This record gives sequence, structure tokens and C-alpha cells, in this order.
Amino acid sequence: MHGEIITIGNELTSGRTADLNSWYAAGRLTASGLSVIRITSVGDDEIMATEALRRACESSRFVIVTGGLGSTQDDMTCKIAAEALKRPLYLDRQMLQKVRQYVEAKGIPMSPPLEKMALMPEGARMIHPKGAACGFSLVQNDIHFYFLPGVPEEMRYIMDAFVVPELLKLYESPPVTRQRILKLYGIDESAVAEIFKKLEGKAGNVVFGFYPRYPENHITMTLRGADERSVTEALDRVEEAVRCLVGPYVFAVGDEEMEEVVGRLLCEKKRTLSVAESCTGGLIGHRLTNVAGSSAYFQGGVISYSNESKVRILGVTPKTLSTYGAVSAQTVEEMAQGVRERLHSDLGLAVTGIAGPEGGANEKPVGTVFVGLADPAKTVSRRYRFWGRRKQIKLNTSTMALDWVRRHLNGDPFLPGV
Amino acid sequence: MHGEIITIGNELTSGRTADLNSWYAAGRLTASGLSVIRITSVGDDEIMATEALRRACESSRFVIVTGGLGSTQDDMTCKIAAEALKRPLYLDRQMLQKVRQYVEAKGIPMSPPLEKMALMPEGARMIHPKGAACGFSLVQNDIHFYFLPGVPEEMRYIMDAFVVPELLKLYESPPVTRQRILKLYGIDESAVAEIFKKLEGKAGNVVFGFYPRYPENHITMTLRGADERSVTEALDRVEEAVRCLVGPYVFAVGDEEMEEVVGRLLCEKKRTLSVAESCTGGLIGHRLTNVAGSSAYFQGGVISYSNESKVRILGVTPKTLSTYGAVSAQTVEEMAQGVRERLHSDLGLAVTGIAGPEGGANEKPVGTVFVGLADPAKTVSRRYRFWGRRKQIKLNTSTMALDWVRRHLNGDPFLPGV
Repeated sequence: MHGEIITIGNELTSGRTADLNSWYAAGRLTASGLSVIRITSVGDDEIMATEALRRACESSRFVIVTGGLGSTQDDMTCKIAAEALKRPLYLDRQMLQKVRQYVEAKGIPMSPPLEKMALMPEGARMIHPKGAACGFSLVQNDIHFYFLPGVPEEMRYIMDAFVVPELLKLYESPPVTRQRILKLYGIDESAVAEIFKKLEGKAGNVVFGFYPRYPENHITMTLRGADERSVTEALDRVEEAVRCLVGPYVFAVGDEEMEEVVGRLLCEKKRTLSVAESCTGGLIGHRLTNVAGSSAYFQGGVISYSNESKVRILGVTPKTLSTYGAVSAQTVEEMAQGVRERLHSDLGLAVTGIAGPEGGANEKPVGTVFVGLADPAKTVSRRYRFWGRRKQIKLNTSTMALDWVRRHLNGDPFLPGV
Repeated sequence: MHGEIITIGNELTSGRTADLNSWYAAGRLTASGLSVIRITSVGDDEIMATEALRRACESSRFVIVTGGLGSTQDDMTCKIAAEALKRPLYLDRQMLQKVRQYVEAKGIPMSPPLEKMALMPEGARMIHPKGAACGFSLVQNDIHFYFLPGVPEEMRYIMDAFVVPELLKLYESPPVTRQRILKLYGIDESAVAEIFKKLEGKAGNVVFGFYPRYPENHITMTLRGADERSVTEALDRVEEAVRCLVGPYVFAVGDEEMEEVVGRLLCEKKRTLSVAESCTGGLIGHRLTNVAGSSAYFQGGVISYSNESKVRILGVTPKTLSTYGAVSAQTVEEMAQGVRERLHSDLGLAVTGIAGPEGGANEKPVGTVFVGLADPAKTVSRRYRFWGRRKQIKLNTSTMALDWVRRHLNGDPFLPGV
């Protein structure tokens, strides 16, 4: 079933913003077995947008449009939709009330530009997720149109919660297509490619996809078959074969993020965690607290960016720092123990390293990182060398540290001393 | 001068790869005063690609095409170009030799699929940067077509070294176009739009662009003129007029990020900073340490996610917590003072709030946030209400907190008690 995506906004055609909305939508649709034949971005330009929408009517069965639903003069998607699909605009009472509630809660007075947000093409059906921006859908000549907000978080939420499920219900007759994603960490891109050669010809009709997503590597397995059950069973068998080859590196199946995996395991095992971050500067805590409900297991932590903070707040001894340096196994282990004791958590996780671009030395070049983990019984640490620029080193360090917690909670023998 | 961009590849329509080529090209063209009216991505599909190219002929003066120039079966851009522009393919001897040199250097034998790479549409002019992949250009009906490789590094190089200079030579009559970006924070999107109405007709030929970049708002001012000096002076005058209207909200000119502005000011004023983060969970520290050299002014901080950590590490009194709650002015002020004293920094910055989705209450709903700042003389705080989902509330809170430091260091009277 073919469809297309239209994204509207001057920020796209001027190159101020990369079009990640169409990337996201295309990925979700493709993973669901729906096919995207074209992605068009136009500015906030009535003629260009109307033309794109009209053209979509000629070749597509579904059309996803994002952007231009706000209150400013630039936001004219409703008007464009009305014009391209030849439907008059009307004031949608329900939408008007949503807009009014929203702005009044913010203490903003209602105004004509805000009222304009409730002018919808006739026949529009509102999509209104709780507590978020609205979109709307329309059906014309058996083509399904979805108009979504341009804010990526809102667009993604509506896409996942409304659009994809509805399209699947509409278009999915047998055969069915299912995709499974395995997320890997700790294995090189080229090593993954080598391993996959071994699977060639042994996985039936399963189509593999391979996506480096720094510092992770994602593998997709897509299969089309007569029914849900047979496809799922076949994917189970292939997943098992893949896990035989790369099992220890698989940290998640599906969309789960590393921090969500760690959070889920901490909940399941009823453990609490605290962090002591030097070179990551707060990124590990940030990622952990991106997960709703993380206060159940995350006690907090210390960003010990200076030597002084390592001593004063974490209790690292000045002698350790002067003898071994701030970037050392001894320091990272004292950091992990220190934060665990001070925050009364079951586990204490610590990182220290050189994120660069300055601060490297011969025996400890930029990218040198120590990870440490303390539990009630013992403290372990290991030295790593990461590559790339400052933000990449921070990101890789944070993923490695979180992966330590995952492995520890899984009793994974890969971890030193576990 | 209007043009458009067409990107070709299944990886784009399947959502495997975000289309950063068109983003890059659009940014370079716009910054050079050329206007992009449409970006189209299609798969490796002859019909869709040919149609996109034909349509471009109807509305554009220049067309940038990327992708599909390789040797695999999927790569059919030359064929598509020949068909859409009705020019026969011929074997380009020069291109054939380039291909042969390239593959032989890599130790690969020449083969028919490789020879296919030298089949070019009649009239094509090769673009062959030294030691890199080739592209080609074509002129038809006064429309300039550029066909570039899809590999981002190669595409960017050819774009900068060949395409933009050539287009500027062709189309730039009064020779210069300059763009200036102002970044605003703390002012609503609709308020910015209102204010901009006041500037209409008062800014000569300056073209304004307005880009919400949550939680910031960016304004671009683009001007074309006879020479660098007159354009720069005109932009200076317009910037001054804009600052009269929204000055206190402008935190940066150009590409500088909020955390870079804060870092620069801390360096200039020779002050140090520490942070106590509750609802942001480490994000403020993460942003501050994304800036190279931040260890010169950032002492570190405490992620006081639990009440216990607020008491044990920051010295918030249990009585404050029980009387006013963890999300209160009293608590955030004690957090700011506590981290400042414990980390021996000049400034102590603190946030506490409810990022949701759970944890809201009637008098303190989700999105309620307190920001506090302590300096040697006094401690101030203020209550805010942010909107959106968990990650948006975290992001907005971190930007507000960083903006407090910026305003404080600038002696901005907007800040309470400064």
C-alpha cells in the first residue's frame, strides 16, 4: 500500500532544520509494511503546499502532512487542505474549546490568530491525544490524509498512537509484514557485517537491515507471510540464530532505549542506583531521568567535574588523586563507592575520563575512560578507549556505563569481577 | 532565484537514513541568498524520479539532485536524467577513465556495472574534484541541473566547491547576500509573531525568517545588497530595531548555543558555577560540559533526585522539605546555597520541579518548576509553569536555568532580586 509524506515549513526549505519528521514517519510506516513512495518538503507557501497535496492525491493511498498547524500567519495547513481537497473551512467547536482550554491554562487571552487554529476543513476528524497538540484526519476518494503538528515529539506520539495503527487496520490484509529490531552495543560495525555473512541464505525469506546508530548498531529482520503467527514464529527462530552469534551484545528488542532497559531491570530486581559522573557531566543522570517513573530506582548522583568535588562530596582521597590521577581505576572505584554510600543506593556507578579535545597525554590520550561499579559486596572497574569528538565520547561513555548496570543485573559474565 | 532539491534513494523513503543532504544543500543555498522552494525525496524508482525531475523543470531555475550515481543496479540517476531531459546516453571517455583509475587503485577489476557509471546524458559536464567521487551538471532551457553523489561528505564537498560558487556567479547580480540569526528565549511564539508585525515595512528589503526551535525561537534577517559593507550596516540597523522590541530575550547572535553563551560569560567575568538538579536529572550539567574547556568554570554539581539526597548531600533541612515540599521556593534556594557552598563556586544554580507524567497535584501540576540562583550576596528563586511532555519540560527547565546565569552575569534587571 503506497503513500507519501509532505512536510511544511520554511525552516525545512531554508535548511535551518533537518527534516527528521519525515525520516521518523517513513521509518515507522516502512517497519509496518507500508510503503512510502515520495517525501516532499515545501516552505510555508500556499501555492507549493497546495500543489504537493494535489499531486499526492494522484498517486497515493495515504498522505501524512506535518507542520503548519500553529497560530501564526505562517501556519496555513488547514487552509491549504481545504483548498487542495475542495472542502470549505468551518469553525470546529471541539477544537476551539481545546485551544481555549490550552491557552487559558497558560494565562494567554484568546485572540483571532488563536481562533484560527480551530478553522478546519469540512469532514475533518480531530486527533486529540490527552494533554498534547492536536492533529486531524480526512478521507477523500478513499485516500486517507493525516495532518500532524510539526513539533517532533508531538508528531511522533500521534504517529505511533493513531496513524500507524489506523493504517494497519485499513490496509493490512494477508499477507502480513512484521519487523523486529535488535539493538546491539559493544560490537564493532565491521564485526557485525562479518557475522551477518554467516547468516546469508540461512534465514529463509527474512530480510536483514543493518543500521549503525552511534554508538549502537541496530539490526532489523523483516518478514512477510500468510499470518501473524507463522511470521512471528519464523522471526523467533531467526532471532535465536542471531542471538547465537551476537547474543551478549543485544541489549534490547524493539524500541526500548538502553536507559529504559536499565530502569526496567532495576525495578524487576528491586535495586536502586546512584551515579558519580566526571567526563559525562550529567548525561548518565539525564538519560536515566528521561524515563518516566525513574525516581523509583534512581537516587540521584554527583557531577564531580572538579578534583575538589571528587574529594569534598564523594570522599575520594587526595592521595588517590595525587598518586593515580583523576582518570584512573583507583579514582573511579572510590567515586563509585563514595556515591553508593552517600546516597544509600544498592549500586554506585561512576565514570571518569578525558572527553577532549584538550587534556590528553601520552599514556592517557583523549578518549581514555574508566567505568566503575560498586555493589554491597565489591567494586569493579575497567579502562576503555573511545574515539570521536567530545560529544561522541560522552555519549559512548554513558552508554557503556548504563550497559554495565544492565550486564550486572543480568549476571552477565562479560563484566570484570561479576 | 528559485530552485529545488531532489534526493534519490530507498534508504530515504524507507526512513533508514535521515535526509541530511537536502538539509545541507538547502542551508548553503539559503545562506547564499538563493531560495529553495521544494525538496523531494524518492526511492530508487525510475518513474517517481523521472516525474520529480520533470516537475522541477516547470518551476525551478536550478535543480540539485543527489544519489543514484554509483555502480549498483539501484543507481540509475544518469538514465533518469537522460529520460526526463530527453537526451540520449553516451559513453563519456573522460568519466570512464576516472572510474577505471579509481577501481584499479583499489585493486578491483573493471566490469560492465562499473562501465555503466560512465554512461552520461548528452551535454553533461563532469564535476570531478581531485581524489573524490564525480558528479555532473547540465543546462537545459536555462535551468541548471547538478547531479551529485549521495555520500554526504562527497556531496558537501562538491556543493561548496562547485555548485554554490557557480550558482552565485550565474545569479548574483548585486553581489552579496548576508544572513544574521538572532536566538530568543523566554518569549512565546505568538508574541514574537505579534512583535514582528510592527517591523513590517520598516526594515527596507530585509527578509525576516522565524523558526521555533523548542524551547527557543530563532529569527533570521537576510539582506541582498551592493557590497558587504552596506549590507552589514543595514543589518546592524535592523538588528538594533529588533533588539528595541525583543532585546531582553535575545541570548545569542549566530550559531552560539545557550550553554556556550553561559560558558563565555563565566570565562569573561571569571566566575565559577555549580548546579543542583532535581527534575532535570543532570541535563544542565550535560549541556554545560558539552562545551570544550568547561572545566575552567564548571565545578560540577549534585543530581538530587531523591529527598534524601537533597538533605544528605546538599544540606536542605528536613523541616523545609516537610513544611514546603521538595518542589518549592524554599527548597530550591537551599539547594542553590548548598551546592554553592559545598562546591566552593561563585554561583550555585538549582532546579526542582515535576517533569511528569505522574506526580502532579492541584496546586502543583505537572510542569511546575522552581529555579534558584545563589551568589555570595543573596539567593533568589522563582516559580514557573512549563508545558509539554517529560523531555520537553526537562529541556525547557534546563534552558531557563542557564538563561538565569546569563542574565545574572549580564546584570539583567529581568531576574528577580538582581
